[in-house]
Amino acid sequence: MVERRKPIPVADAVAKVMQYKKQGEAETVSIENCDGRRLAEPIVAKHPVPPFDKSPYDGFALRSADTNDASKDHQVEFAVVEHIGAGQVPTKTLEKQQATRIMTGAKIPDGADCVAMFEVCQEYERDGKNLMAMKRKLEAGTNIIPEGSEVSKEDVLVEAGAIINPGMKAVLATFGYSEVQVAKKPVVGVIATGTELLDVDEELQPGKIRNSNAYMIMSQIKRAGATGHYFGKLADEFDSSYETIRKALDQVDILITTGGVSVGDFDLMPAIYEKLGAEVLFNKIAMRPGSVTTVAVKGDQLLFGLSGNPSACYVGFELYTRPIIQHYLFNKQPFLKQVKATLQDDFPKPNPFTRFVRSYITYNNGHIGIKPAGIDKSNVVTSLAYTNALMVLPGGSRGFTAGSTVDALLLDNEDGQQNFKGVL
Amino acid sequence: MVERRKPIPVADAVAKVMQYKKQGEAETVSIENCDGRRLAEPIVAKHPVPPFDKSPYDGFALRSADTNDASKDHQVEFAVVEHIGAGQVPTKTLEKQQATRIMTGAKIPDGADCVAMFEVCQEYERDGKNLMAMKRKLEAGTNIIPEGSEVSKEDVLVEAGAIINPGMKAVLATFGYSEVQVAKKPVVGVIATGTELLDVDEELQPGKIRNSNAYMIMSQIKRAGATGHYFGKLADEFDSSYETIRKALDQVDILITTGGVSVGDFDLMPAIYEKLGAEVLFNKIAMRPGSVTTVAVKGDQLLFGLSGNPSACYVGFELYTRPIIQHYLFNKQPFLKQVKATLQDDFPKPNPFTRFVRSYITYNNGHIGIKPAGIDKSNVVTSLAYTNALMVLPGGSRGFTAGSTVDALLLDNEDGQQNFKGVL
Repeated sequence: MVERRKPIPVADAVAKVMQYKKQGEAETVSIENCDGRRLAEPIVAKHPVPPFDKSPYDGFALRSADTNDASKDHQVEFAVVEHIGAGQVPTKTLEKQQATRIMTGAKIPDGADCVAMFEVCQEYERDGKNLMAMKRKLEAGTNIIPEGSEVSKEDVLVEAGAIINPGMKAVLATFGYSEVQVAKKPVVGVIATGTELLDVDEELQPGKIRNSNAYMIMSQIKRAGATGHYFGKLADEFDSSYETIRKALDQVDILITTGGVSVGDFDLMPAIYEKLGAEVLFNKIAMRPGSVTTVAVKGDQLLFGLSGNPSACYVGFELYTRPIIQHYLFNKQPFLKQVKATLQDDFPKPNPFTRFVRSYITYNNGHIGIKPAGIDKSNVVTSLAYTNALMVLPGGSRGFTAGSTVDALLLDNEDGQQNFKGVL
Repeated sequence: MVERRKPIPVADAVAKVMQYKKQGEAETVSIENCDGRRLAEPIVAKHPVPPFDKSPYDGFALRSADTNDASKDHQVEFAVVEHIGAGQVPTKTLEKQQATRIMTGAKIPDGADCVAMFEVCQEYERDGKNLMAMKRKLEAGTNIIPEGSEVSKEDVLVEAGAIINPGMKAVLATFGYSEVQVAKKPVVGVIATGTELLDVDEELQPGKIRNSNAYMIMSQIKRAGATGHYFGKLADEFDSSYETIRKALDQVDILITTGGVSVGDFDLMPAIYEKLGAEVLFNKIAMRPGSVTTVAVKGDQLLFGLSGNPSACYVGFELYTRPIIQHYLFNKQPFLKQVKATLQDDFPKPNPFTRFVRSYITYNNGHIGIKPAGIDKSNVVTSLAYTNALMVLPGGSRGFTAGSTVDALLLDNEDGQQNFKGVL
């Protein structure tokens, strides 16, 4: 007997999963090891920037009032009383017609209210004294970057949930964050099911295929910012599969299985969910590929039963598992970034269901284009290799022509979005 | 005396650096540890896909000729002689009116030339025999995915130089690549110079700033796919700086210094290049920020003298160091992806030089937009935090208005491009 399942819309499936979202804990890591992690605390300015009035150029700091008489035809002269580099601190307060030679980034000495760039100054010695002359009148404030003009103390510079990139590391270092609170990575277990599966290093045998899903999913988990734990592959045998899955649940935050969720004779997952006492949230979604994607919950732990078919498995992870991981990681925009794009090729075959087609983004003179990545059969792994987006094609009785506007979910983009739009 | 330097165009500077490009070596890593690495060999199909004629559905494999008499009003009957799941191999060759019950992905038994889906079949028993009846005529080839129909043996599936993503891992696993040849990461040394620099865990002192460039550059090196080695920070003292730099060169493929390349009194790098016997390729570029970016070469080893100013340092790395790293990593598209984008805000201030403005990309109904990331002064580190693109503004006497089309260099994009366009 073939069980008849009722498919639910994609947005409903996403909403059902997100009811069980949890935020992870924070952990402290050193600034050296925080790349690509998500902030669990905002970055706050611990001091004003710049922390003192500073010079944007090499030149002479002086009192602008002393240049009042300067003109093309009349030079004014200054005694150079001190000579400081960046990192050195001026010690002298400038008096009338005195100047301090300073370097880019240096603190402006007391008394000075402007900086004359080297280019407008002449340096010379007379009677063993260092002197400088200029022919230009300067306003107070010229070439001075005032304390706090860029950032005030206590300003929130970056919100929690942001991913740490090179620019953000500069900000962390500037404010003395030698350590930073980041979101702890959830541990996501992976179990591949299917008697037909060979290990990657096994010779191909008739009727069998190598287990590619586990490696793919482990890589998707890593890209999503979580830690994968691979428990190996299981033959389609109930008792041992049940035991492995039951034990794995104790070691992980989230568990993914691949395969066994269809209605075939060897699809054991429905019975395993039952014996575990896990509530099945849905087991059929109105989408292609991945219609058999099943999600169950035991206590507050999510079990993702992804299809054994590589493309369906890939799509199922990105649509349903990834946002749960992102929320765990404090990301306030847990869903894949969705943008409009222009279809570059005809896609003639209609399908009554919403499709998520493995695709890649092109850029054409300021417009976003999208092309299907190779043959789009759900059992073709090769088209996954160049995929960086999922094209969303609404179900219906007609195909799509080149030039149509479609939605695209960006897979490599660090930005996400707050709400799932997908297939509204 | 202030040395006068002659600026060269950005494209000329890039070309000068790329004369010294080198490709790195290959190394073998396990499939588990190859994420994000670049392929040093193409991925080649080691067998056809599928490796045998297989079924896309659960159903019955049979001889299409045996359905010739089937119709809505006349059912034809088959003896079910075998029952196989995915991973099991059919052993029986089908004779007239015989069928094999098979699961999705299973090998088609000898003799069969089509598959009838469960939905069109009725199963029953009679006299202890398993039987199946159907009322539909099937053509030869129906519901069979022929051997090699997706990929032929020896097909090149992914070229060397591509970055390994989750989909590519699935391809590697499918073809039994338990190990894969990837490009060895170059070791890029980083030395920060400047007496004004404090360590990240030091208290702020008057006239001093924390060393943010080293952390930023180390993160940029990591993002570019190389290994950073931080040698610490140096005070502006010639002998010790020279010694540290000389020794560091023996330990790295590429050396980056930050600071000390300007024409200030404490800018030691020009003299250090001279004493090292390194040839300075250029020390002034017609660009903002980063005009003092200096590149020298000693033997065949590149020394990047980036500005001490955080934004100039950031831009200098992305424009000049990153493509050298990418080429080393077998990437055939070593330059930053350059796209057209629509400026979202006015950018009124003109500048005679080409500018690379830290910016971020927006997506507006299929069009790419770009916004400057915060205040764009070259000494503001905070605007680096949200940067994911550099906006290229050609030099001239006019500013830019919202709605203008500008070029953008994408920083987070894994795709690059073969040639540097930048500021043509």
